[in-house]
Amino acid sequence: MTNERFSLPDDEITRREAQKIKELADEERKKGKKIVVVQGLGFVGAVMSAIVADCEIDGKAPYYVIGINRPTAGSYWKIPVINRGESPLKAEDPEIWKIFSRIRQKDNIRASWVEDAYAEADIVIVDVNLDVVKKGVGRAQEAGVEIGNFEKAIRAVARKMRPDALMLIETTVPPGTVEYIVKPIVLEAFRERGVVPPEGGPLIAYSYERVMPGDQYVVSIKKMWRSYAATSPGALEQARQFLSSIIDTEGFPLYRLESTTAAEMGKVLENSYRAMNIAFIHEWTRFAEDAGINLFEVVKSIRVRKGTHDNMMFPGFGVGGYCLTKDTILADWASRTIFHRKDGLKFSVEAINVNDLMPRHTFDLLKSGMPDIAGRKIAILGASYRRDVDDTRNSPTVALYDDIRAAGGVPCVHDPYAATIVGREDIVVMPDLEEVLKSASAVVMVVNHRIYQELSAGFLMNLVQPGSCIVDAFDILTDDKIVRLKKSGHVVLGVGKGHIRFL
Amino acid sequence: MTNERFSLPDDEITRREAQKIKELADEERKKGKKIVVVQGLGFVGAVMSAIVADCEIDGKAPYYVIGINRPTAGSYWKIPVINRGESPLKAEDPEIWKIFSRIRQKDNIRASWVEDAYAEADIVIVDVNLDVVKKGVGRAQEAGVEIGNFEKAIRAVARKMRPDALMLIETTVPPGTVEYIVKPIVLEAFRERGVVPPEGGPLIAYSYERVMPGDQYVVSIKKMWRSYAATSPGALEQARQFLSSIIDTEGFPLYRLESTTAAEMGKVLENSYRAMNIAFIHEWTRFAEDAGINLFEVVKSIRVRKGTHDNMMFPGFGVGGYCLTKDTILADWASRTIFHRKDGLKFSVEAINVNDLMPRHTFDLLKSGMPDIAGRKIAILGASYRRDVDDTRNSPTVALYDDIRAAGGVPCVHDPYAATIVGREDIVVMPDLEEVLKSASAVVMVVNHRIYQELSAGFLMNLVQPGSCIVDAFDILTDDKIVRLKKSGHVVLGVGKGHIRFL
Repeated sequence: MTNERFSLPDDEITRREAQKIKELADEERKKGKKIVVVQGLGFVGAVMSAIVADCEIDGKAPYYVIGINRPTAGSYWKIPVINRGESPLKAEDPEIWKIFSRIRQKDNIRASWVEDAYAEADIVIVDVNLDVVKKGVGRAQEAGVEIGNFEKAIRAVARKMRPDALMLIETTVPPGTVEYIVKPIVLEAFRERGVVPPEGGPLIAYSYERVMPGDQYVVSIKKMWRSYAATSPGALEQARQFLSSIIDTEGFPLYRLESTTAAEMGKVLENSYRAMNIAFIHEWTRFAEDAGINLFEVVKSIRVRKGTHDNMMFPGFGVGGYCLTKDTILADWASRTIFHRKDGLKFSVEAINVNDLMPRHTFDLLKSGMPDIAGRKIAILGASYRRDVDDTRNSPTVALYDDIRAAGGVPCVHDPYAATIVGREDIVVMPDLEEVLKSASAVVMVVNHRIYQELSAGFLMNLVQPGSCIVDAFDILTDDKIVRLKKSGHVVLGVGKGHIRFL
Repeated sequence: MTNERFSLPDDEITRREAQKIKELADEERKKGKKIVVVQGLGFVGAVMSAIVADCEIDGKAPYYVIGINRPTAGSYWKIPVINRGESPLKAEDPEIWKIFSRIRQKDNIRASWVEDAYAEADIVIVDVNLDVVKKGVGRAQEAGVEIGNFEKAIRAVARKMRPDALMLIETTVPPGTVEYIVKPIVLEAFRERGVVPPEGGPLIAYSYERVMPGDQYVVSIKKMWRSYAATSPGALEQARQFLSSIIDTEGFPLYRLESTTAAEMGKVLENSYRAMNIAFIHEWTRFAEDAGINLFEVVKSIRVRKGTHDNMMFPGFGVGGYCLTKDTILADWASRTIFHRKDGLKFSVEAINVNDLMPRHTFDLLKSGMPDIAGRKIAILGASYRRDVDDTRNSPTVALYDDIRAAGGVPCVHDPYAATIVGREDIVVMPDLEEVLKSASAVVMVVNHRIYQELSAGFLMNLVQPGSCIVDAFDILTDDKIVRLKKSGHVVLGVGKGHIRFL
């Protein structure tokens, strides 16, 4: 996110930083503030830190925030960047930039890397990642869950935290994690330290966020429903008070669940539900193409049924992002590993396989329109996984790119927002659309960014040579444009748009 | 539906009936009415006939209705019953009774069996069944589709109908049926009869209803969105005019689709979507039970997300009724048979298998609570497939009944509305709850009828002996009641209610 280089801190700097953190915490506590330590300055943790630091009650800041990130080569830079009042995220929401600058001015945040900070906390918010490693497309059942890294993070906190401090976990985890993994780790660490847990057990709460990348990022944390649960009544009350000070609970009342496992299940269930509904409509996409139907129109005709059918998904190119591609795998892992159900959540995991294979369908359409891919330049329009954002995590563009490469074609990717694809920095993403389209034998439009929808048929006809193939994988081209392109000799195909052959 | 016996009409009576139909049609046409012939007086056709006959524009009836049903031993009785002003359906909607009596008084309907009636029609509405024959639980892919019966019905109309009459099909059919099956049959019949079809082809339209059994039956036909499509602009306009006169199109505007295949797909897609969402949550039901979670609470906590998640299904006992149990099979059949896609809609059909197996889960819960089923009386509360209705078509109660029987148990079924289970008249359904509960070793509550929800813990404790097992398969018992029942020595289990073991 930044091109500057920061050298990693040495032991001496770390020792001084630890001293500084202690002094800061003492000082802020004297001002009557609670110390909130956020573990993990990633996509959610960084913004959560900023929102907590920005929080005011009756004109006063109730919290001082220390954001902790590990000092690795890849992510240490976030710490100095936050500390000089900048956002570590290149986000579409202007509010994020304002908030990081504001909390710097208020001097109410310290980004750091020293784990001693956990000892100062009244509340530790756990926002580290819990990643899934897929072993290949269509093999979601075999994916690895990096529970070891997560356990290590929890242990780091448990070794330092005060027994009366609240540990509030926001990371998406396999259901049962707090009860069967986190709580035993905390108890063991307390025992090793000779610390007596509060009556009723360690204070651990779980509450997941529903963050949505895009221009409403901050709103999607503050003005959004939250479920929560805790391991004891004391932890529950602390969590309730804290969340109520951060979330607009008048508009979005908190939902208390009976156990942390229930709250953990809420997150993976709601994302599995979306993933399932995407997989479902994908199967009908092929059916609609076989039958010569515009599935977008059929789905629209069904979505008029408000309340029961209005969230039916439209056909599309693929599923990306951090949550929908992996949360079902966490649930399946919990079912098999924690609750010993041999076949886990077979049906739901199959949806992940269907979704991971979605981009292959677009590739097949391309092949049907231009069988001879080898040696041809093929433009791919779109690298992010969502309309008008720059977020490229698990972008399905990668799968199409690899398929075209494997067939000997020369893919050339354009995106107006994203400059690279996370984890696939070898793929060149170009910002100049004309450059990408020039002399391409085929164009595959994969993200419904506004600028693609606004392209005129004339513009495309000028830049894309007649006889070449245009695949619309996301309902980007209107029927009028398709008719003009077909008339000018282009082969046009569309995901879920079987009616094109009759246009 | 009636205990009276009616003798089937002989040839002489049929000859006279044909004469009578002709006279009636001539007479009504002279009054300026259009003749609407409804083919099939089943669940939808009978009520549709009545609604069309009851229709008024500027205080005048625009249509005279002839309802046609085959004179079989099992269903001939509907004809005399309708003709004397009664409803052939035992429906919860009082409006149905009023409407049948009113159209009798208006003398605006004739139920009959003579196929010559199709020759009189300005509009023929096809409302015959298109059934699916399953070969066993979990084998939905192998199910038979009775397309032959449907083709026969279409042929009967095509042999008689005027070439300028509109054939409006409402039967749920495999997508592609109008284009690839109905239209060729009509063209062939016209050719055989030496009849020239209108320019643009025969006038065939497709529009599916979204009828919902229960006390809003008539409303669910008239005040409900309709999609429609037709084989030609002429047919489209006729269909639009007719539907606009029947449906409240101000509140529920018609949705025109580009082709009859698209309209046909709408119906099976929307029902497949519901079936998929039920199958999805069923898998999580078992997970929630393993994890000791109340899944109903978790789903409620997610449904606060209006517009995207508020239609998430709750756990339940099983899926019944006419549509959700079969419509996906029609779609899969079309994909494989009409559009030659070898593996059809595999993923969606698997949902039907999951749903057909749902009652087995309740049986497994029962066994876990009372391993020794043989020789025991087991009360099953609920025979219909939906709350507070008497509709027992494809009731999942049958699967539980059969499982208990197979295990040597003695199932005893209660329902406050249904007196028998359609197609399984061997199962005795008793109306007296106390009789059913008396000396039962276990009680399985499978339908959330209001009267079951209103049962007090005291009532159950008095009638169901301590130590016996109570399975709540539909969130019928509150936690308070469960606590009382557990305290009094009952074993209580619940579908999706893993938290019961902690109560």
